[in-house]
Order: sequence, then C-alpha cells, then structure tokens
Amino acid sequence: MNELRMAVVGVGRMGLTHAENLHSRIRGAQLLAVSTSSAVRADEARRRCGAVSVYDSLDGLLEAETLDAVVIASSTSAHVANVEDCAAAGLHILCEKPLGLSLEDCDRAAEGARAAGVTLMVGHTRRFDSGYIEAKRVIDSGGIGTPVLYRSLSGDMNPPSVAFADLGVSGGLILDSMYHDIYLGRWLLGDEVVRVYGEGGALIDESIATVGDVDNAVVSVRFAGGAMGSLTASRTTRYGHDLRGEVIGDEGAVQIGRLRRTPLRVLDRNGAHHDAVHTTPERMGDAFVTMLQTFVDCVIDGTEPPVTSADARATLAVALAGRRSIQTGLPVEVETTMTSGSPTGDPYKS
Amino acid sequence: MNELRMAVVGVGRMGLTHAENLHSRIRGAQLLAVSTSSAVRADEARRRCGAVSVYDSLDGLLEAETLDAVVIASSTSAHVANVEDCAAAGLHILCEKPLGLSLEDCDRAAEGARAAGVTLMVGHTRRFDSGYIEAKRVIDSGGIGTPVLYRSLSGDMNPPSVAFADLGVSGGLILDSMYHDIYLGRWLLGDEVVRVYGEGGALIDESIATVGDVDNAVVSVRFAGGAMGSLTASRTTRYGHDLRGEVIGDEGAVQIGRLRRTPLRVLDRNGAHHDAVHTTPERMGDAFVTMLQTFVDCVIDGTEPPVTSADARATLAVALAGRRSIQTGLPVEVETTMTSGSPTGDPYKS
Amino acid sequence: MNELRMAVVGVGRMGLTHAENLHSRIRGAQLLAVSTSSAVRADEARRRCGAVSVYDSLDGLLEAETLDAVVIASSTSAHVANVEDCAAAGLHILCEKPLGLSLEDCDRAAEGARAAGVTLMVGHTRRFDSGYIEAKRVIDSGGIGTPVLYRSLSGDMNPPSVAFADLGVSGGLILDSMYHDIYLGRWLLGDEVVRVYGEGGALIDESIATVGDVDNAVVSVRFAGGAMGSLTASRTTRYGHDLRGEVIGDEGAVQIGRLRRTPLRVLDRNGAHHDAVHTTPERMGDAFVTMLQTFVDCVIDGTEPPVTSADARATLAVALAGRRSIQTGLPVEVETTMTSGSPTGDPYKS
Amino acid sequence: MNELRMAVVGVGRMGLTHAENLHSRIRGAQLLAVSTSSAVRADEARRRCGAVSVYDSLDGLLEAETLDAVVIASSTSAHVANVEDCAAAGLHILCEKPLGLSLEDCDRAAEGARAAGVTLMVGHTRRFDSGYIEAKRVIDSGGIGTPVLYRSLSGDMNPPSVAFADLGVSGGLILDSMYHDIYLGRWLLGDEVVRVYGEGGALIDESIATVGDVDNAVVSVRFAGGAMGSLTASRTTRYGHDLRGEVIGDEGAVQIGRLRRTPLRVLDRNGAHHDAVHTTPERMGDAFVTMLQTFVDCVIDGTEPPVTSADARATLAVALAGRRSIQTGLPVEVETTMTSGSPTGDPYKS
Repeated sequence: MNELRMAVVGVGRMGLTHAENLHSRIRGAQLLAVSTSSAVRADEARRRCGAVSVYDSLDGLLEAETLDAVVIASSTSAHVANVEDCAAAGLHILCEKPLGLSLEDCDRAAEGARAAGVTLMVGHTRRFDSGYIEAKRVIDSGGIGTPVLYRSLSGDMNPPSVAFADLGVSGGLILDSMYHDIYLGRWLLGDEVVRVYGEGGALIDESIATVGDVDNAVVSVRFAGGAMGSLTASRTTRYGHDLRGEVIGDEGAVQIGRLRRTPLRVLDRNGAHHDAVHTTPERMGDAFVTMLQTFVDCVIDGTEPPVTSADARATLAVALAGRRSIQTGLPVEVETTMTSGSPTGDPYKS
Repeated sequence: MNELRMAVVGVGRMGLTHAENLHSRIRGAQLLAVSTSSAVRADEARRRCGAVSVYDSLDGLLEAETLDAVVIASSTSAHVANVEDCAAAGLHILCEKPLGLSLEDCDRAAEGARAAGVTLMVGHTRRFDSGYIEAKRVIDSGGIGTPVLYRSLSGDMNPPSVAFADLGVSGGLILDSMYHDIYLGRWLLGDEVVRVYGEGGALIDESIATVGDVDNAVVSVRFAGGAMGSLTASRTTRYGHDLRGEVIGDEGAVQIGRLRRTPLRVLDRNGAHHDAVHTTPERMGDAFVTMLQTFVDCVIDGTEPPVTSADARATLAVALAGRRSIQTGLPVEVETTMTSGSPTGDPYKS
Repeated sequence: MNELRMAVVGVGRMGLTHAENLHSRIRGAQLLAVSTSSAVRADEARRRCGAVSVYDSLDGLLEAETLDAVVIASSTSAHVANVEDCAAAGLHILCEKPLGLSLEDCDRAAEGARAAGVTLMVGHTRRFDSGYIEAKRVIDSGGIGTPVLYRSLSGDMNPPSVAFADLGVSGGLILDSMYHDIYLGRWLLGDEVVRVYGEGGALIDESIATVGDVDNAVVSVRFAGGAMGSLTASRTTRYGHDLRGEVIGDEGAVQIGRLRRTPLRVLDRNGAHHDAVHTTPERMGDAFVTMLQTFVDCVIDGTEPPVTSADARATLAVALAGRRSIQTGLPVEVETTMTSGSPTGDPYKS
Repeated sequence: MNELRMAVVGVGRMGLTHAENLHSRIRGAQLLAVSTSSAVRADEARRRCGAVSVYDSLDGLLEAETLDAVVIASSTSAHVANVEDCAAAGLHILCEKPLGLSLEDCDRAAEGARAAGVTLMVGHTRRFDSGYIEAKRVIDSGGIGTPVLYRSLSGDMNPPSVAFADLGVSGGLILDSMYHDIYLGRWLLGDEVVRVYGEGGALIDESIATVGDVDNAVVSVRFAGGAMGSLTASRTTRYGHDLRGEVIGDEGAVQIGRLRRTPLRVLDRNGAHHDAVHTTPERMGDAFVTMLQTFVDCVIDGTEPPVTSADARATLAVALAGRRSIQTGLPVEVETTMTSGSPTGDPYKS
C-alpha cells in the first residue's frame, strides 16, 4: 500500500481539522472525500481542502468512493454505528474519542473492527503532544523515580451548548473533557485506576444542569499500584484553554502545560502580562498532525496502533465511574481486568 | 501598654524562628525569655537571641518572669495544656497550629482564653504571605468573579521522623501539613467545607505507616456554597518545598506559589535550569514576621486577631474529617455551624 | 489571477522549507518546480514536495516552466543576478535576506524589479512571528509610550562553515544574523538608525577569522529620534537558538522571545529544568508560513508587500556600517534618507 | 574585638537601611549613633533604630562616641572627606558607592585608609545578592565555559531630582546607576574593561539635561580578554525596578534577575499577569544584610574585605570613560593597570 485513500466522516470543528491536515500535512495519505449533513460545513470543507468530494451521508460516501481508511469525527453518539459501517466496508479507522457512550458500545465497535480485520485507533490526541511525549519518556527512563501523585486540569473557556452537553450526545463534561485527563494519567503512570470519587456541579451555567451535566468537577483517582490522582475539569476557565498535567514521583516530577499563546510579554505600570491559549488547535495543533501521521504510518506498515480500543474502553470505564460517583456521592470501584467481550456485573455502567 | 514583654514556649525549629524575629524584627515587643527542655536548644537560643533568659519548663518561666504575652511553639500534643497555663497567668497567646489534636482540645483551649479574657491567636502563617494576601484582595475585589475551584499542594522534600509523624504527636500528614491548605481555602473562598473524601498511603516511607500515618494524600473538598477543591499533600517532593495554591472563579483565577530560591537561571546544552526552595523559612520567612507583628499590634491595640480559635477549630474539623475519610474509604460530612462552646458529639458523621 | 504558479530557486535549508510550505500550507499558490545544482537536494525536494519538477539551473527552470512567481533562496551572493533574471522573465519575487552584499547590489535588484513591473518582497521572516506582530501592535497603539531603548539578541548554537561565513558569500555574522535585529528594530520603533558602533571578535572559532568574520558581536545603534539600542549576535549560544527582542518605552515595555521547545518542565533534586529551541523552524516555523502567505496574497491582490527593497536596503546600510565599525574601531554614521534609485557615494561616512 | 561599636554617617534612604540592619539583623555589631543634618531623618532614625544617638554632624559624632567602625552613606560628593575623617579617627569603614567622583578622590580616600591602617570596603551591594553569588560560582566552576558576552540592565522607575542627578553630586546616571553593571561585569568575568563606547540622552526628562545628565544610556564595553558587553541604564522603566545581568560563555550562560514582587499570578480574560519589584529593598534587601555582615565579619576577623578601594577605583575608571564617551561621541580606552597612587596620563579622568 503506497498512499492511503482517505475520507473524513463529519467535518465539525475536529473533523475539519483532520481533513485539512490530511489534505496538506500528512505523508502517505490523500484526502478524497468527506461526509457532512450540513451545507455550510460542506462549503467550508470544499474551501479549505482542495478538490475534495463531499457527501451528505456516510452511506453515500462509502458507496461512491474507493477508500483505504477513514477518520470518524461525527457526534460521539454516532461513533459506534459509523465504526461498524466503515469496518464492514473493510476500511481502517481512526475514531475520535470517546469511542462510545457505554462500555457495551465500545465492545460493539471493537468487535466490528476485529471481525473485519481492520485497524481501529482512537483519537487520544494529547498523548501526541510533544510535552506529554517527553514527559512519558522521562518517567519511563526513571527520571522521577516511582510515580506517586498525578494532578491534571482541563479548562475550557466557555460551556458548550446544552444540546452538546447532553449526556446522551457528548457524554457530558466527564466523558468529553476529563476523558483526556484519564487516559493521560493511565498512560503516563502505566497503571490502571481502581477507584474514583467525584464532586461536580452546574455552578455557573445552570442550563447545563437541565441535561444532567455539570460545568466544573473534581475527581480523585486511585491507581492499582497505590498512586493517587486528582483530576479537575472546568468549562469556565475564562482566562484561557488551560490544559495541565503533572506527575510527582519519589525522585522528581514532570509538569506539562503551556498557557501562553504568543512569545510576547508586555510590561506596564501594572506589572507584566502575557496572553493565553484560547483554542485546542492553538495548544494541540501539532499533536493532531502527529496523531494522524502515526495512524497512517501504522496502517501502511501493518503495525499495532499506539491507542487501541482496549485503551479507549479502559478510559471510558473510569470516566463512567467518575460520572456515577458525582451522581451518587459515593466512591466507585473500577474493574481493572476488563474482558472487553463480556463485561459482567459492571459497578459503574450507566 | 507600650512594649509587650514576651516569651517563647518551645524553641524547636519554629519556636527559634519566632524567638529570633521577636528579638530583632518586631516593633512593640521585646523577647525576655524562652523555655525548652533541651540543653542544646537552650544554647542555640542564647546564641541567636541576645540576653534572653532560658528556662527548662513553662512553669519555671511563668513563675520567674513578668510577661504580657507568649508564643507557644511546643509539640502539638502539648498545645492545649500550655494555652491553659498561659491564659491562667493572664498572658495573651499566639499558638502554633494546630491548636489541638481533637475538637475537644480546641474547645478547652478556647474556653481557657475566654475565661481569662486574653487574646488567643493561632499561627496560620501562610495567610500572612504576600502572595496569599494579594490573592485574597483580588478575590474579595471581585477580580476572579465567583470562586468555583480551589486547588492546593503542600510538598515537603522528605518524610519527618516516625516519632513526629505519630498521629498522637503531630496529628500526621493531614493535621500537620494539609491543615495549611484547608485554612487557606476556607479563608480565600470565605466559605466552609461541608464534605471531604480522601485517598492516602504510605507509598514511599513504609515506616511511617507503623504509626498510622501516610506520606502522600489527595483530599477532595466540597464547600457549602458549591465550590469544589482538591488538596494534595506530599512528604516526598524531592525537588523542593513546593507550596502552591490556586482559586479559579468564573471570571478569572489566582495562582500563588514560588518554587525558585535564587534569582538565577543557568542555561547549558541540556536547556534552562533554576534552583528550588528547600525550607519553609526560604519560602515563608517574611510571613512569620508579618504574622508575629500582627499579633503584637492586635494585643497593643486591643483588637480582634485575624485568626481566632474558631478558625482553628473549623480547620481542624475538616482535617480530622479528611483523615477519617482516608481511614474509612468513605466520604465524610463536616458540620458547618460550629458552636465552639458546646460541641455535641462528633462534628462530622462518617 | 487565481492560483500562483510558483518555483523555488535554491533548496538548501531555507529553500526547502519554502518549497514544502508552498507545496502544502499556502492558499492560492502551487509549487511547480525548484532549481538546485545538488543531486542530493534534488532528491530531498522530490521526496518532500510531491510531484515537483527539479532543474539543475535557474535558466533551465525559467525556460521550461510557465510561472507567476518565485521564491529566491539561493546563496546571498547569487541573489541579485537571480532577482534580475526572474524579474526579466516577468515573475513576482520573494527573495531571501539580505537582498545583496552591497548597497549597489540592492539597487540593481530593486531597479530590475521596478523596470519589469513585478513585485519584489524581501524575506524579513521574523516580522511575521506572532510575538513581533503583537509587539508592533502594542507599540503602535501607544501601549509603551515613546520607545527609548531597543535590545536584541540573535544566538546560534554553533558557528557555520568557514565557506559560509565568508564575507563575500553570506556577508558574515552582521549581514547574515544581526541583520534580523536591525530590521526588527527599525520596524518596531518606526525609526531609522543614524549611527552605529560595534565590537566583535572571533573569540571561540578562530577559523572564522581567516575569512574576516567574527563569532560574537555587540553593536550599539542610535536612532534618528534619539532612541538607543544594543544588538548582540552570537554563534556560540550552545544552550539554544536564542532569539530575543525588547523595546522599552517611557510608559512600559514589550519583550519578545521563546526559548522553550516543548511544554514540559522537569523537576529533580537539582531544581527545575526545561528544554530549549535548537533550530529556526522550531522557533519561527509559523512565521515562514505567514510570510509566504502574505507574499502570495499581495501578488494576487496587487497590493504593496509589507517588506520592500527599500526596507532591505536601509537594513543592509546599517549592517554594513556595523561591520565597518567593528573593523575600524570607530563609530559610523548611517545616512537616513536613501533615494534608492540614485545612491551617491557611500551611504555612511566613517 | 567582640562586638563592633558602629555608627552610620548619613541616614537618607540607603543610610537608614544600613542603620536598621545594624540595629536588628547583624551579628557582632551594635548601632550606637547616626549623624544627619536633617531633623526629619533624625526622628525617623530614632523611631526605627531603638535607643540610637543622633548627631547633626560627623564631627560631633566622632567627638562624642567611642566607635570601632562606620558606614558612610552620605552624598557621594561628601564621601572622600568623610572617609578621610573617619580613617583619621581610626575607624574601619564601609563606604557607599561610588567612593568618589574622580579617580583622584578615590586615591585620596584609599590613601587615607591605608595611612590609618583601617579596613576600607566599598558598598558594591549587588555582588552580595544570592543570584549574583550563585552566578559567580557557576562561572568560576566552568559551568558556562569561557565567558564571551556580558549583558546588563539597570532600570529605575522614575528619574531622580535634578539636584541629585547633578554630575557634581551623584555623578549622574553612569556613575550612580550603571556603576553597578560595571563592577558586576568585572567581577563575574574576572576581567578588566579596556574600551567603552556610549550613547545616552535626556529623552524623557529634559530637566535632567540642565545638569549635564542623561536618563537613558547604552554603553558597549570590551574586556582585556576579548569578551564584549552591553550595559543599559534607564531611569524610565515605569513597569518596575528592573535589574538584570547575563553572561554567555561558549558552553552555557547564566541569567540573573527577578522582576516579580509577590508570588502571585492573576489570570483573567486578558491573559496572565504578575506584579513587579518597585524598589531596591524589594529586590536587594537580603544583599544589604549580607554585605553588612560580611564587612563586620572581615573587621572582626582581620581579613581583607571582598570589595576594596582598588575595585572601586577600577569601576569608577570605566564609568568615567563611559560618561566621557557619551559626551564626546568617541570610543574611550580605559587603562587596565592602575597604580592607584599615581595615575598618569589618564585618558578618561574628568
């Protein structure tokens, strides 16, 4: 296989980023088509991605195009069906996170890919940021000794629409945003979360409570090996899109984060000032490229992708447990050994 | 009253700092005497505090000297008895934190001071750091909107001796160290903690587990007004004495911290490097002076001190609840309305 | 004109960057061809720029291709002849800096473009960095009052080859590297340099002295309006590719710079550490794209480019004066009013 | 000699700082008296320095008190006469910088101390800042290789009174402020300045020009060993009291500076903000204590002080040369071997 013929399913904010990157910055792949039900987005995709074909449904796209692989960036609630359809069509798949809204959905998606013999990688983007990559290298090389504490923050400047926040659409704050903090912690520590406890509330945006979601949350996690963590997610960090991670070991620590957007500092009678990152592409732009390139390389080389559906399932299990703990006010145990085909007696399924 | 005649009870690390500051940096007070049962510390006090009288017991000191006020910096387990004795002698009191190891002890100490009509202030030192003072001013002026998240970290470079860690001596990690994170959060947010959940373990220093203590802990807190917090305490931040606080509101945030010791940055083929604060005086030296000066000014002016025994009691209640949650694995509710004169039963149910 | 048909002349380090950006990241342009005399570079260009045609000479390229515009990234000593040839062929030109090694060369290049009626923009890349753009905006909006001091540093990690350092090839440290500090200062302050004084030496790399160059230099500049500046260039900042600029006004200041490469901080018993930028693309990658896009947009829209040959000439005049001052040990006056069409005698008297 | 009996001559801003430090923070010395012709300052000294005796003249003080040592903090123009009088009285002397306004004055002061056999140390305060001390240690240990560049900035927030700026009183910007940058450079590099070139102007405060002074200046320096430097002094850094130093070697670099006052960062919709140091005590408070303690220790131990009159003379020689260069517009050579008793053919004496 020389150059992957690819399409992007769904060209909202994330999908369009993937489409543009495929169009111009990825070696070994060419973007042939996108699908979207929105005429506005169709135009935007045509404007920014060269001579791309645009379809108003995934069915239409699959019928008309000869493809090798797809990026699925549709609404989370549509992920599983899209994965099953694309897998059935024999296409390798990079699917945005979370893979599904329930563990059963994750299992269906994973089973679909396995049955079809296609690669299924999940979009754990932040793992491909140079800061996290280097932090992982330092930790694995013993640079901080044994990890004992993990602290993480994901801050968005403004709450999303109520329609998006809906637990049945995006999964809400924990499944959509804190999800990143969970997979990063699991990956950086090389360990699984066994217990969570969460506090959360719709403190600022009361409308979000009408669909069961919260706008700020703190979740404690306990890892199997004993390490502890504290994850914070906020949809009201008005000062910027603040993504931070930190692992403290018994010999040192790593801190990942970059709030500053431009390399400028202004000084005046009030002191020193600098600007802040406002959007995900400003902070994670390169990680999108690295992730997409990694997927393309894995498919071409026939190697296992660095993020599997099992990773996605384990992360979702913790996120679901955290959401339930917030809802119940009680700590929730997370199963660590997950037989993805037959989850039995899940204490945390919603 | 022109100049307070003062003594320091106990001249361990903290007590000696107070004695030196009283000797040389505080206006309106003079250090007349200290008490210590250690001959080594007696010599050290004489060497560093001029013509100070040294007694081997508080009784001896109280009998021989004519005083207006004392600083109590003895072992935490001795605080209450010391406070009662000094109050009975009619002396105004600045007592190191925590005031006692139980709420009953706090109440006894507070009652002793009230009965004697003397001022009792508790050593919540970090509140007097310029960073926290300025953060409080910004928050109170509306600079960050409504506080919704509080994040805090207290990191010591090395575990203390097992004898000190003993829950019956210092109270352990939560009562001795995370105590600071609790009173800072209550003060900065102007709100009381109503629920806590803690994870903790003796991950690095197993010997500390023999006296029931932990070396790393994460405690979630929920405030009465809805805000959430995450407090982290570590005795193994080998890279430095890392004290950090952060309050995020719906219009902005404040971050307090200073890890860097000297104003030097070194650059070499490995990048850029700077040193770290290793000890409390390196980080909080000025706060000790400000706190002591505040106490002296309050006594001279006859005004209420900014930290009362009620503050100390409310902080201890949260700390005890956090410690219990770690021990039981369950969330613990904290009573918010505390009538310090008549505590009935447990202020927090588990 | 819908989409510019473009070529890149010379695909060394800079030329290849331009070619790749044209190939993949610039709207409104397509890369058709490159020229290089190096077989190795020809292969590299084919590998990284898709189906690009490669010629072993500019003549061959101009003969075979139908083009609208070119990027000239050949050796500085070849710039003028290349500009003249491309202008004669009716092509719009973006030429790498410096435009030439003498003011006479600059004038020839400018005259060639003017005679042919084509756009000639010069590659003052750093002006297109977000930090400098934002600094300029702050200064122009009055945010720092009247600029009085300009401080700048350009540090490369290692000296170039002796062949490159040759004053007759690259122009040496002042024309090749400090050139950036000069045009940035002129632009940020909106003022011309009228006097320079330089100190320089081959302190570390003695071989570079054999071709008349220096590896470290400090040049003082005086602006017509009275402001003062100090420019530093070094080829031995082993710790990183350190590009910094600063303008201090009578109401505030701006500081531009970013030494950190990844958003990671590592903490250990020696303190806190972060990495450093090592290469120009790591620091200025986005500026290359912005500059190229600006050129393409100007040509398509028929507007004046933001960097003209007059800018390039005025910058070169200061650089030449600085080099001469280092050579003579005396201050050198720089002519401020330059009629680029009729330069009479030396623009700066010593 | 057990405890030095000391006095402070002149209790302006600096003198009062020294008096307070002697009163309360210096081991091995006691403050007995101060002299000042100002009734207001006399009251201030009494208020802040305990039971100190206050005299309205140095003569009166020397007549009435039995002393071992003095700190001279009078106006610079009075330094030499004060040093001669105190030396004649057999007192060890710590004199504020600069020691005099001319090299002849320096020589008179040095000769007076030598003849009387008393210690004469000069107040090069910044050398005692922890940042500079650590930088010196790193440089001397080979941590940055061979120093090649020295960059320094001294910024005051506001111009002084015209009366103070007078070249015949304080010596003006170069002798009063850039003086620090000169001795720091000489000390950090362990090398002498052999040539200077300066640009300066009264750009903001025109009144200062009436007494021959400037408010902003840039001075290039060349060291005997080849290294180059650029020193900047400003009296209009409105954003803060900005003191920075940097030495770049062929293996690394050190950067010294701290603009931030409190350990607080505020984040809002405009980005991230922190305050700035406004005064010398905020930045250099500890250095005053360290310097004074060093002087007291040297006198008690009978050891050579780390800053001698020869250091002061060599620094002044560079400062005078820099001032002359600004006045003449020409580079000025500085004699490196200075026989302080007989400077002959000084190219830079004023």
